[in-house]
Amino acid sequence: MTVRGAPAIGVTAAMGIALAAKRSKQEDDQILLAEVEKAAQLMRNSRPTARNLFWAVDRMLKVAREAADQGRDIRRTLVKEAQVMAEEDVEANRKMGSFGASLIEDGDTVLTHCNTGTMATVSYGTAFGVIRTAISQGKKVNVIATETRPRLQGARITTFEALSDGIPVALIVDGAVGITMAKGMVNKVIVGADRITRTAVINKVGTLMLALAAKYHGIPFYSAAPATTFDLAKDSKDPVIEERDSREVTQIQGRQITPKGVRVYNPAFDVTPLELVTAVITDRGVFSAEQVRNMTAL
Amino acid sequence: MTVRGAPAIGVTAAMGIALAAKRSKQEDDQILLAEVEKAAQLMRNSRPTARNLFWAVDRMLKVAREAADQGRDIRRTLVKEAQVMAEEDVEANRKMGSFGASLIEDGDTVLTHCNTGTMATVSYGTAFGVIRTAISQGKKVNVIATETRPRLQGARITTFEALSDGIPVALIVDGAVGITMAKGMVNKVIVGADRITRTAVINKVGTLMLALAAKYHGIPFYSAAPATTFDLAKDSKDPVIEERDSREVTQIQGRQITPKGVRVYNPAFDVTPLELVTAVITDRGVFSAEQVRNMTAL
Repeated sequence: MTVRGAPAIGVTAAMGIALAAKRSKQEDDQILLAEVEKAAQLMRNSRPTARNLFWAVDRMLKVAREAADQGRDIRRTLVKEAQVMAEEDVEANRKMGSFGASLIEDGDTVLTHCNTGTMATVSYGTAFGVIRTAISQGKKVNVIATETRPRLQGARITTFEALSDGIPVALIVDGAVGITMAKGMVNKVIVGADRITRTAVINKVGTLMLALAAKYHGIPFYSAAPATTFDLAKDSKDPVIEERDSREVTQIQGRQITPKGVRVYNPAFDVTPLELVTAVITDRGVFSAEQVRNMTAL
Repeated sequence: MTVRGAPAIGVTAAMGIALAAKRSKQEDDQILLAEVEKAAQLMRNSRPTARNLFWAVDRMLKVAREAADQGRDIRRTLVKEAQVMAEEDVEANRKMGSFGASLIEDGDTVLTHCNTGTMATVSYGTAFGVIRTAISQGKKVNVIATETRPRLQGARITTFEALSDGIPVALIVDGAVGITMAKGMVNKVIVGADRITRTAVINKVGTLMLALAAKYHGIPFYSAAPATTFDLAKDSKDPVIEERDSREVTQIQGRQITPKGVRVYNPAFDVTPLELVTAVITDRGVFSAEQVRNMTAL
């Protein structure tokens, strides 16, 4: 959890694989490739839900094998590829920002969940990048950040990024989303995604609750994520929803907040059916839920 | 916030008024009544949302005036009345338990919010009392407790009461309600209420989110509250939703968890429209939302 946010996780995994290759003293390409494979497996096992992680690992392995086949330097190829991927992530965020900002009107209050800004990506952000772009276009945008228990990414990081940029932000607890919407305080919801399939947006736990409340109150609900987040394979299985340590819930900053010995169910993500999603904002454009359902490639 | 839970608040207010009368040295009945009125106003201003508070205060003022009119001892009358109200609360909880337990099946997992047990009432509990009665009837019942930010009543108190009683309990963050239901882990939702009108259940912030998620997943949603919680006046205004100190959100147990200076919206309650409520469990029986809509008295 030193690195979090699907895009940041993907690029960090790529850099981890490049580092593993660089540190290896192996001179035999095939043994080096086996070591790279081993590093890749370590990365894959770290966060089972984030699609970008698997995409990044697969891409790195592919270029490593191609380099070996063509007699090019595996290490240099991997380092270069990881750097390209980092640049591509920023570029994708900027494009998402551009496409997404067209959905935001001057004066909107946008509710967002978890953190999707600079600290969840290489830079700029996905959902938060959309807000940034809208503001850079001269639109007035207010942000409502959900605190995002258990790890408080909204309370700790999104508010920090907003305050740093001078973006007006108000913090609410996750349970207050409903009344905040009922009071007419929210015009749009924009969240990120850890994986988008042809049936659902998988994202930080609590996202499904936001989507349900948005639907009930007639508020558009968007997910912003780069193309690398999409898992469009027809036979793609339900993603593994990572369950995390109970201490994320029973302790806050190392302080026990519950009776000792209480059982905890702590899923890190949830699954929002596309029927609750107005559209997804990607670096290739904005697509309706219906379009995502029928997508074969992005 | 030393006392919390609508029924506990009501009875505590009654006892506070009795205490104010008892401590007064006034020998003139009319001046004593004025002092009692002043104590009543102090109580009324403490928690604007809880219906039981206003009911309890009004009842105490009524018996005080009657005692004065009839030449009886005001102090003794008030002390006696507060004691009767405490006994009535326990009795009401037992009845609610009985009526509500008929809705719970052997093997059910019941999701509940905030704390509605012994520590939110005089004793036994409202929603939690229903669970207690079902278990005392020999039914196996599992409880899922939401942590209930910002004040963590679920994490701190409901888990404590469940563990003390040997009731199987699992704790989740408020944002995890959706996925917990989607995974088929919840059979019923039972919450308390701070006020029930002919259009809505007003209860701890987050309740609306539970109701929306329950509706979407086809799970029955019940609110358990004594008759004293009902505000059935045809011209009853929308209740004031108490907004509390931002530090409830920015600090946990005195520890700062957000950047300094962040703005907070911290409503203590929310409003769940009756269309999302399957039925309300009271000490007079179980009533469908449709029945509550047409109620003139309970």
